[in-house]
Amino acid sequence: MSEAEVTSNGNFSRGENGRTEGESHIDVDIADEQNLLLAVAFVYDAQYNRNIHFETSPEAVRLYYFYNHWLMQVATYFFITVDLLLAVFEEPAVFPLPFLATSIVEVLCLLAFFGRLVHFSKVTPLSIFWKDTKNICVMVTIGLNLIDLIIYGALSIAEIQSVRWSRVLRPIYLINFAESRQIRRAFRSIRNTLPEIMYVFLLFMFSVLLFSLMALQLLGKRNLKTAEGEPYFANYLDVVFNLYVLVTTANSPDVMMPAYDHNPWYAIFFIAYIILNTYIFMSVFLAVVYNNYRKHLKNEIRKLAYMKRRKMVDAFNTLKVKVGSEFVIKEDKWKMLVKLVAPDISNSHRELLLRVSDEEQNGYVGKDAFIRLADLLNIKVITMKTRKHPLESWMPHVYKSAWSRFIRRVVQHKGFVYAYDGIILVNAIFIALDESNPLISNAEWVFLAFYLVEILLKLYTYDPRSFFAKNQFWNWFDTLIIVAALIATIMNTSLKSVGQYSSQQVLDIVFIIRVLRLIRIIDSIQRFRVIMNTLLNILPTMLTFSGLLIAIYYVFAIVGMEIFSGKIRFFPENSTDPYAQECGTSALKDSAFAKSKYCKNNFNDLGSAFIVLVELTVVNQWHVLANGFSLVTHTAARLYFIAFHIVIVILIINIFVAFILEAFFVEYSLEKSEVETAIEKKIQELGMAVQEDAPPENLVENMESCETDAGTFGETTQKGLMFRIASKRYRTVDALLQRMFEAEIPPGDEGPPIEDIVNLSPNDLYIHNPTFDTAA
Amino acid sequence: MSEAEVTSNGNFSRGENGRTEGESHIDVDIADEQNLLLAVAFVYDAQYNRNIHFETSPEAVRLYYFYNHWLMQVATYFFITVDLLLAVFEEPAVFPLPFLATSIVEVLCLLAFFGRLVHFSKVTPLSIFWKDTKNICVMVTIGLNLIDLIIYGALSIAEIQSVRWSRVLRPIYLINFAESRQIRRAFRSIRNTLPEIMYVFLLFMFSVLLFSLMALQLLGKRNLKTAEGEPYFANYLDVVFNLYVLVTTANSPDVMMPAYDHNPWYAIFFIAYIILNTYIFMSVFLAVVYNNYRKHLKNEIRKLAYMKRRKMVDAFNTLKVKVGSEFVIKEDKWKMLVKLVAPDISNSHRELLLRVSDEEQNGYVGKDAFIRLADLLNIKVITMKTRKHPLESWMPHVYKSAWSRFIRRVVQHKGFVYAYDGIILVNAIFIALDESNPLISNAEWVFLAFYLVEILLKLYTYDPRSFFAKNQFWNWFDTLIIVAALIATIMNTSLKSVGQYSSQQVLDIVFIIRVLRLIRIIDSIQRFRVIMNTLLNILPTMLTFSGLLIAIYYVFAIVGMEIFSGKIRFFPENSTDPYAQECGTSALKDSAFAKSKYCKNNFNDLGSAFIVLVELTVVNQWHVLANGFSLVTHTAARLYFIAFHIVIVILIINIFVAFILEAFFVEYSLEKSEVETAIEKKIQELGMAVQEDAPPENLVENMESCETDAGTFGETTQKGLMFRIASKRYRTVDALLQRMFEAEIPPGDEGPPIEDIVNLSPNDLYIHNPTFDTAA
Repeated sequence: MSEAEVTSNGNFSRGENGRTEGESHIDVDIADEQNLLLAVAFVYDAQYNRNIHFETSPEAVRLYYFYNHWLMQVATYFFITVDLLLAVFEEPAVFPLPFLATSIVEVLCLLAFFGRLVHFSKVTPLSIFWKDTKNICVMVTIGLNLIDLIIYGALSIAEIQSVRWSRVLRPIYLINFAESRQIRRAFRSIRNTLPEIMYVFLLFMFSVLLFSLMALQLLGKRNLKTAEGEPYFANYLDVVFNLYVLVTTANSPDVMMPAYDHNPWYAIFFIAYIILNTYIFMSVFLAVVYNNYRKHLKNEIRKLAYMKRRKMVDAFNTLKVKVGSEFVIKEDKWKMLVKLVAPDISNSHRELLLRVSDEEQNGYVGKDAFIRLADLLNIKVITMKTRKHPLESWMPHVYKSAWSRFIRRVVQHKGFVYAYDGIILVNAIFIALDESNPLISNAEWVFLAFYLVEILLKLYTYDPRSFFAKNQFWNWFDTLIIVAALIATIMNTSLKSVGQYSSQQVLDIVFIIRVLRLIRIIDSIQRFRVIMNTLLNILPTMLTFSGLLIAIYYVFAIVGMEIFSGKIRFFPENSTDPYAQECGTSALKDSAFAKSKYCKNNFNDLGSAFIVLVELTVVNQWHVLANGFSLVTHTAARLYFIAFHIVIVILIINIFVAFILEAFFVEYSLEKSEVETAIEKKIQELGMAVQEDAPPENLVENMESCETDAGTFGETTQKGLMFRIASKRYRTVDALLQRMFEAEIPPGDEGPPIEDIVNLSPNDLYIHNPTFDTAA
Repeated sequence: MSEAEVTSNGNFSRGENGRTEGESHIDVDIADEQNLLLAVAFVYDAQYNRNIHFETSPEAVRLYYFYNHWLMQVATYFFITVDLLLAVFEEPAVFPLPFLATSIVEVLCLLAFFGRLVHFSKVTPLSIFWKDTKNICVMVTIGLNLIDLIIYGALSIAEIQSVRWSRVLRPIYLINFAESRQIRRAFRSIRNTLPEIMYVFLLFMFSVLLFSLMALQLLGKRNLKTAEGEPYFANYLDVVFNLYVLVTTANSPDVMMPAYDHNPWYAIFFIAYIILNTYIFMSVFLAVVYNNYRKHLKNEIRKLAYMKRRKMVDAFNTLKVKVGSEFVIKEDKWKMLVKLVAPDISNSHRELLLRVSDEEQNGYVGKDAFIRLADLLNIKVITMKTRKHPLESWMPHVYKSAWSRFIRRVVQHKGFVYAYDGIILVNAIFIALDESNPLISNAEWVFLAFYLVEILLKLYTYDPRSFFAKNQFWNWFDTLIIVAALIATIMNTSLKSVGQYSSQQVLDIVFIIRVLRLIRIIDSIQRFRVIMNTLLNILPTMLTFSGLLIAIYYVFAIVGMEIFSGKIRFFPENSTDPYAQECGTSALKDSAFAKSKYCKNNFNDLGSAFIVLVELTVVNQWHVLANGFSLVTHTAARLYFIAFHIVIVILIINIFVAFILEAFFVEYSLEKSEVETAIEKKIQELGMAVQEDAPPENLVENMESCETDAGTFGETTQKGLMFRIASKRYRTVDALLQRMFEAEIPPGDEGPPIEDIVNLSPNDLYIHNPTFDTAA
């Protein structure tokens, strides 16, 4: 006999002695315990959508727990970040460090990645491990990085200048480590879209080349001059580049003006070109990317849904016992399992889930009900309690006095909100006015006082615990901003009074906080709040894109630094360098690049390179940048900029737009899921539902997870316990899509075996006849 | 007894004597004839999706035929065009005409519009006529136009300068005359989207204002200078304008550079701004517009579908007779009806439709089958015949000789296509080379000869009638281009040899044709052909947008001409005007507008105004244009440009993108409709199907519509008649959507009464639970 405890983070520890009180007291024999651990791992994976196929031997399961431990994951991310950030310290560096230092850190990172890989190979069956391209990919990358490091080191000892070419491979770690599933999916989506977009792109390039040929024939021999006095459309490659830039609209209308000045009818040529290549083709790119994105997203979601079901079935099979003619899981096992899987939910919440899973209170849970467990656990049920305001308990006389009641009524009145909206607007005007006027700078204190009083009044009226509940985003936001503003303003004033010196950084922060305070006004208008909530919902998945973007930017930044670093330099205004106005090189004399004062747009370190790439993403003036860099290096340098444009603007931005469109449509077409409805029905049945429009005054979120009640609802209702399902804003687009797919698999369908699930292709998807809803 | 003939265009004529042969011989009494005419009008409307509610009195039906006559429609469009084009001749004019001339033409147009309206009021029930806002709208506009004309005329006699303000109302005729249903729908779609987009726009503007406040606080007091040496972010309105321009990306990265040069960390501010306002908000605009577009499109389609069904039911009720227990339409009536509705389809085609409608050959058509008639008529069935090549009939010995057979085999071989692809590529290189070399200019004759030989060979191999069949787009294209090139080249050469003078216009046309010839290569590559077909499919509906755009451009152009005309002038290069370099005004000295040589971008006539508006639509450099015009008039002039940007870029372009996305998805999710399947099944049953992959050599489209066969298929099959359903490329997105909706209405459902159909709102749409297919 032994006691098993699996903590909330899934790491496994065994206590030799010392029983925990209440239900946590678990008595199982070793086989049972191992089965339970295995089932917990399965349910865990199902709940968090991990699709790792792990071995079921006790040793592997233990290693698997360790593999998924948050510390291991944080460590992996840490090493990935360090490895990527090495570029900040390597030549050309923001902060130069000796090669020895960076190479030691790099070797450490590589070791960590290798260790992680070895760990993974112990968890998963070897046959699957070696079939997985991402493992091979990481291994090869580690090898290449090492080889490059050794060669570069040897050559630098021999004082031969060489290139650290393997640095472009570093983002592979970011993409390929199992934790970054979302980034990998975005990458797969791009890879899958490539063939189809390729044909449209070729057609598009064909049209550009054809129009260029026409332009050369029509305009090349007219001896026209551009606004800078250079020959207009003089040779074919020049025409192609100019017209390609016109697709991005960056040189419109300049590229048209000489021809238009010569003869107004030539404008038709350019208008036709823009309509076809900028508007129609760019929309077609979006359509193709979006269509593929949807198709592959569906497939990915289907895989996840099947995988989840598979894992739940495996968990069920591990724990099942025969009762009568069917296999079930006994109530006590079920409770143990849930306690281990989700240790931080309250007893009453667990009891509620049991009621939903075991409708008829038979004392056991059937297979279909058990499979829903992962979804049940994913629904955020908030347990609430009716409580008195702390002040009411502390000094009931004062709190219940007529004055106190009057204050509370005022605060709850709509006029209170309007009054503060007015104050914010006045505040906005004061911010825009001149700071140097002492009246205005002192007004800041008045506003701060107003805001502080507001928060205090609200805390007086509403229970502080409900005011600072997890889902009260705006209350948290307000309080943080006001406290920060208070601290920063006091700091600023004291710095000023002490040393007659006002720190620019502190002042900047004060300014920013002061303006951020105005955002509050959004929350007063219902329609704005809805849009904001949708945006906040999309945010987490949007962050996936930053991962994707960083990976691609990083590759281009490293390549750009190798090609362009040091060619263009920035000089401060009072520099004495003879070429200070030409970015330190005579090649840029009289160029648009130098005239626009773009010298700071260079590839001399990682930070600058990223900013240039952002400017290129925004597209405008990218031809000026491209021409500038091609003047200081070679005309072929333009290819680098065209490649970047194709990858980022035609692929990535379109995927981003596709993603936002999809997310919005899912948000719009949203309804409650079956599982949610089941829980809600049960809550209603038990008479423990919170009225949506009830004032939250006295209902406080129940944070205690270890009440000692054994689970009869009679007691809990007496204690004033209520349940509420958390609002929409906590749902991710992914989860919503998955739910929709699940609604379409019949309950009995366990899906294909696990090896097949991984290889499902979008073409296997059962294609429904298009319906009116699907299409329009 | 009398004979009725309704021609294909729906106009009604009655012959006093002279019977037509065969089945066109129709003997009906007057009531029957009137019923038939009424039914024809109903079926016509159903087939072409007209949703006009007309009165059923014989007089009204006759007027209705006249109302729908193509001459009347062409006349309406003609007057609309003339009315719109008046702006070309009115001050500020491209071709000035005296006020008297333009006002007489305008009065004529107004009379025509009024007449059209009166005609319509006779056709439709008066209660419905007066409830329809578009009629009221047109009437008010006519009144306003007249009043304006009189006031302006009176004032100009008294030599007082005034404004022709009512000219901005002219596009109302384009929108509101019943023929431009598609444009009206696009406008309705915009109007319906407005409230929802308004909230997002306010939130977006709020964010711009907030960021501007922050920028003013952070950067306004640093005494920074822009690249032009002007103060940077000096006052709030200036900051707001600059940051609004940054949303359009037109002044990126220039607006960032001074701050970035001062301190690299300020770049974060601008990057955050661009991510939020340019990328996220602009995508949200697209999402909101797209979502509304879909919602309202669905509603419109539903209205159309119900209206169509209603009209078919009305037609059925007009002609029905009782057979047994149910109402039906007799075969002879049905045939008469179809002959009148679609006089240009062949007898065998009509027979085929009858077989589909009257499955069991009972001699009558039931209600459900009859309702499908409108759809059946809309499916393009191509009747084909096996025929000999004309040369084969003419000189069989030569045509069947070994040599002739060899030539034909060569032409049919894949290598033949590849060889010509090679020739096209070589041609492309020659076009890009220098024309002055005599070798190269003579090569043109060689290429022309090659292309001519190709066409002749193909005509020799394939039947000319199948080579020039309606659906052989590329054959037509090739032949036209080659013939045009031949004519233009000969003209050019003869002009050159006669007068040593080569007309620039002819030369330009020769160049363009020469390049267009290269497009052929697209057809050789299957994947390109697919994309091209999709684009060609979308084209007709895309033209709707040109109508929409022209209406909006027109309004802005008229307003722009009133504000800006004459302020900026263009001078040819060798002008002696002291301000020639500053567009004729000292106000533009040293401005970016003058430096970029934008003087020709002005509002001095309708043509120039349209080109400026196109440039503003493309967005790039629009701040230079806006600043230029605000320098010569007033700073408030910027509002005009901002308004244009909001309307065109945020609304119209997004609707355009939404439309292309939708069209692509419908194309992708396409399958055969139920009705098509029914026809195809019947064709198969009769053994008259054309194999899709069969060589089209000997099958020729049958153009004769009046075969004398009475309709037994035995005869027709002996004559080698075959049927084929025309390919996808003739279907419009609208028709596809409508079909999808129809598939969802149960056959018995006749929909709500006609008055309710018009008022259906998208919120009445039955909302299905979202399914996986709908959402992802």
